[in-house]
Amino acid sequence: MDRKGVLTVISGFSGAGKGTLVKKLLQDYDNFALSVSMTTRKPRPGEKDGVEYFFVDQDEFEKKIEENGLIEYARYCDHYYGTPRSYVEQQLAAGRDVILEIEIQGALQVKKKFPEALLLFVTPPSAAVLKQRLEGRGTETGDVIAKRLARAYEESEGMDAYDYIVVNDDLELCVRQLHGMIEAARSEPVRQSGFIREIREELKGFREGAE
Amino acid sequence: MDRKGVLTVISGFSGAGKGTLVKKLLQDYDNFALSVSMTTRKPRPGEKDGVEYFFVDQDEFEKKIEENGLIEYARYCDHYYGTPRSYVEQQLAAGRDVILEIEIQGALQVKKKFPEALLLFVTPPSAAVLKQRLEGRGTETGDVIAKRLARAYEESEGMDAYDYIVVNDDLELCVRQLHGMIEAARSEPVRQSGFIREIREELKGFREGAE
Repeated sequence: MDRKGVLTVISGFSGAGKGTLVKKLLQDYDNFALSVSMTTRKPRPGEKDGVEYFFVDQDEFEKKIEENGLIEYARYCDHYYGTPRSYVEQQLAAGRDVILEIEIQGALQVKKKFPEALLLFVTPPSAAVLKQRLEGRGTETGDVIAKRLARAYEESEGMDAYDYIVVNDDLELCVRQLHGMIEAARSEPVRQSGFIREIREELKGFREGAE
Repeated sequence: MDRKGVLTVISGFSGAGKGTLVKKLLQDYDNFALSVSMTTRKPRPGEKDGVEYFFVDQDEFEKKIEENGLIEYARYCDHYYGTPRSYVEQQLAAGRDVILEIEIQGALQVKKKFPEALLLFVTPPSAAVLKQRLEGRGTETGDVIAKRLARAYEESEGMDAYDYIVVNDDLELCVRQLHGMIEAARSEPVRQSGFIREIREELKGFREGAE
């Protein structure tokens, strides 16, 4: 069988709980490899190279771009963020399912390069809940929250391009749904091409044997 | 919410166990409505009108075709078989998930009229197992089995047009997979259009409120 892993892209509104979801998904299920992004921003206290991000300088990042070594990248607040290609391709080839937690622009770039990727958009059950969650963190100023909500509005324009809208209301339920979507994706013809080819050959053999 | 049910089309090789699968799916889960086909063939002993099929004569069937009252139909062995439109549309509008168990040609017709329909192709784990199952029934002659296998080969050409390939090896597992695929389909943007519209409106409101 030439089964390849499923490339799952998880994005959605800031404050939708993507990080917690992904963490729980990796805890509850095997076979997932989490892709680590590359960035030119400086590590915050406690962040380790290769864990939260691969921390590189601008020259190194731009060299990666030129080499086509990133499957997506974007620039925010004067810093680059991107997904190294090699890790993703190695894991998929080994049959592992890869999770990318990235922004919407990046997600759409990935879909262009990997049309069989599964794009999941995580959202709270309503915009009111999103606002509450952002305010509830207590770590952001009103100004930052307003900016995040304005950005969420812009991002909501891209929701239709996703394969699934994942409403994160109950964490346990949401993780099960997410897992179910990835499970289902394993049965898509594009990932069953080896099986389809084999059964066709075998059926063809029967027909020729009967003639 | 304008949530509509999922229209699931189940087809696959004769001998793949579709009937048993569908029966178990309806037993194990609620919210499914099984569409009953219309045919011009005569009822077999024990078959009831409206249960196995709606039994009609040729004039009535052709009138239905003219009225655009069927979402798909085909002719086999001098008889018509088709799916009445009204039942399917009523159930979907009421938010119930509808199951159609039909042939491949019909499945592709449904996909044209209902692009958001979920097409599942049920197959045994190999052609050898398919052959065993057909022989194991003990009700068919070698000639009939050879014809079914030849037809399976032709049908295998259409597998790529399906959303999912469902390998029916273990019945329990297979029913759970099937259910998972239908569950996932509920989260597709096309079925979450009401939710997407609402959250966008709400986010837009926040932005305007903040200005």
